[in-house]
Amino acid sequence: MEEGFDKSPPRPRSEFRYYSHRELERFAADTFVSLNVPKEDAEITAKVLVTADLRGISSHGIARLKRYVDGIVNGVVKVKPKVKIVKEGAVYAVLDADYGLGQPVSYRAMRIAIEKAAENGVGAVAVRNSNHYGIAGYYAMMALERDMIGVSLTNSRPLVAPTGSVERLIGTNPIAFAAPTEKEPPFVLDMATSVVPIGKLEVYRRLGKKIPEGWAINSQGDYETNPDNVISSGALLPLGGLGELFGGHKGYGLSLMVDILSGLLSGSNWGVDVGPTQGPSPSKVGHFFAAINIESFIDIHEFKRNMEKYKTLLKSSKLHPDFERVWIHGEKSWLTAKTRLKKGIPVHIKTVKMMNLIAEQLGIKPPAELPSE
Amino acid sequence: MEEGFDKSPPRPRSEFRYYSHRELERFAADTFVSLNVPKEDAEITAKVLVTADLRGISSHGIARLKRYVDGIVNGVVKVKPKVKIVKEGAVYAVLDADYGLGQPVSYRAMRIAIEKAAENGVGAVAVRNSNHYGIAGYYAMMALERDMIGVSLTNSRPLVAPTGSVERLIGTNPIAFAAPTEKEPPFVLDMATSVVPIGKLEVYRRLGKKIPEGWAINSQGDYETNPDNVISSGALLPLGGLGELFGGHKGYGLSLMVDILSGLLSGSNWGVDVGPTQGPSPSKVGHFFAAINIESFIDIHEFKRNMEKYKTLLKSSKLHPDFERVWIHGEKSWLTAKTRLKKGIPVHIKTVKMMNLIAEQLGIKPPAELPSE
Repeated sequence: MEEGFDKSPPRPRSEFRYYSHRELERFAADTFVSLNVPKEDAEITAKVLVTADLRGISSHGIARLKRYVDGIVNGVVKVKPKVKIVKEGAVYAVLDADYGLGQPVSYRAMRIAIEKAAENGVGAVAVRNSNHYGIAGYYAMMALERDMIGVSLTNSRPLVAPTGSVERLIGTNPIAFAAPTEKEPPFVLDMATSVVPIGKLEVYRRLGKKIPEGWAINSQGDYETNPDNVISSGALLPLGGLGELFGGHKGYGLSLMVDILSGLLSGSNWGVDVGPTQGPSPSKVGHFFAAINIESFIDIHEFKRNMEKYKTLLKSSKLHPDFERVWIHGEKSWLTAKTRLKKGIPVHIKTVKMMNLIAEQLGIKPPAELPSE
Repeated sequence: MEEGFDKSPPRPRSEFRYYSHRELERFAADTFVSLNVPKEDAEITAKVLVTADLRGISSHGIARLKRYVDGIVNGVVKVKPKVKIVKEGAVYAVLDADYGLGQPVSYRAMRIAIEKAAENGVGAVAVRNSNHYGIAGYYAMMALERDMIGVSLTNSRPLVAPTGSVERLIGTNPIAFAAPTEKEPPFVLDMATSVVPIGKLEVYRRLGKKIPEGWAINSQGDYETNPDNVISSGALLPLGGLGELFGGHKGYGLSLMVDILSGLLSGSNWGVDVGPTQGPSPSKVGHFFAAINIESFIDIHEFKRNMEKYKTLLKSSKLHPDFERVWIHGEKSWLTAKTRLKKGIPVHIKTVKMMNLIAEQLGIKPPAELPSE
């Protein structure tokens, strides 16, 4: 059943073109380099973006390229930031991203966390004055190749109404947590702390579909099913939904927890002051990364063996009649990446147009489409 | 409006008696001492239990005393465990609780995490072979008096069905996270990763009320509104509810995250193998504690000032028409504790009977009721 699995299949198929991940990475890196981003930073950013596309999280992939370009062109995202370590100890650090791209500084911050964890068991690094860093899961997954647990948190521009309010005050502030296993796929939880991320509404908008009651409210506090209205003037609901009856205050609390660690602990912006990537003023996003060296706590083989047993326990349980299987977190994305590495990445024609326009404007080679089947 | 606030007021009033927190603590400590628990351990356990009652989380308070007593009497909870540090580094440790009460070992584990964080910025301690530790928030809050962020996680006996399954395979595995503020109350998130904790169903059962559709399912996977049926053979739903539409897979993922850190990383039981406190076999609960020394990352005054500003931002936002205020996490419990410190703790007559029976059986002084108003 897994052959060709895609967690967000191109619909309608006619509106999508296929590209190899290598070609999209090449194009994204060329774009950043032509805007004077250093080559290594450009390649890291391209890699993080296209990994999102490979894993079926298209809202955070190449479709966002223009936003980063705009941020750079508008001068709010610095291409050659002077990243500084402003605080450091054996197991912690605080980095000032100096308003550069979120991806390269986050990659370095997670590397630092991992090295500290290798040395001392645990590493924790906060980042201030950064920008949108792409998918949270990318950095958490960096810990896996070192047999560590990885944690990646970030705040984001306000889109969510706290329980009891109708205003957008807090971000969709994601939590990513990765743990290694004996066999693929590893455990990778990568979740917005809202019922849905904003990207999901953008997909519904594109398809001209109403969203379900329970995802978002309008400015009067009623459930809003028109994604346009939510995006223009409504608010997403925290995980658990409206009010406290089904735990909406928990999603609200998790969002605050992420902001406390990412925004307040790092000395960055938080709450309503976190800006969008494209300006007009620096977004001052904050991140928090942690790595735990499993071997410091327990034999790594025992840990990984138990992770496999846990998967088996979950997979072999009695199914709910409405479901065909129990999924493990990260499994759908891993299967999607397998499919897309082979068949290419479906890119919506609006994004194709955007890429071609960027290529023209910057005088770089546009991405080469894969021949259609 | 806050005068006399109580987050879980005694209903019906006629079924409750009032006790001072001191008297309940005295009684709980006497109970454990008479069962040969060392005085200090007995006092810690009593304090954790009665703090739950003070904060309005009665399901985790003195009402549970009999379960701990049964665990001890049945021989599955050791009264004089030999707690060992089995792994240790500058910032981490793994403790083996040797099947003792969960509260004293957790208190010590969090103390160790705090001392390591004071020295090195971060501390993380996992505990294996423990028992139910009471409210998760107690240990997270221990970090506050040292101006630190506190984290407390634990796994628990299986009561929740993973997304796609109808079986109870995972615990309500709570997340507690506390951060200091300039003024009271501090930020204290203390949440089950299920829609509701099991204690909530026990309250509905006592009141003879149906639970809302969306909290739990029966063994066929349908919404179950009879709390008896859920408790006997159904399952709670993860935060986000049934299926993936409203993010049920996120609550499921958070529960796994807690179990990975508490159960697998510590080398304890996990998933379906975590036992109940009262036996028949050792529950082998696992916990995970962390402390972050804020001052290592940022000026503590700036951090606390921003926490106050964040509270103000949330509190002054435009209210949803169905709500009277925006609450901060921990605020209801803090107000409840203020009320109950003054007026006493309401204890249900069933629990009163249980306490008196324990007093009789163990030959200790029963708790003295407060004179009725």
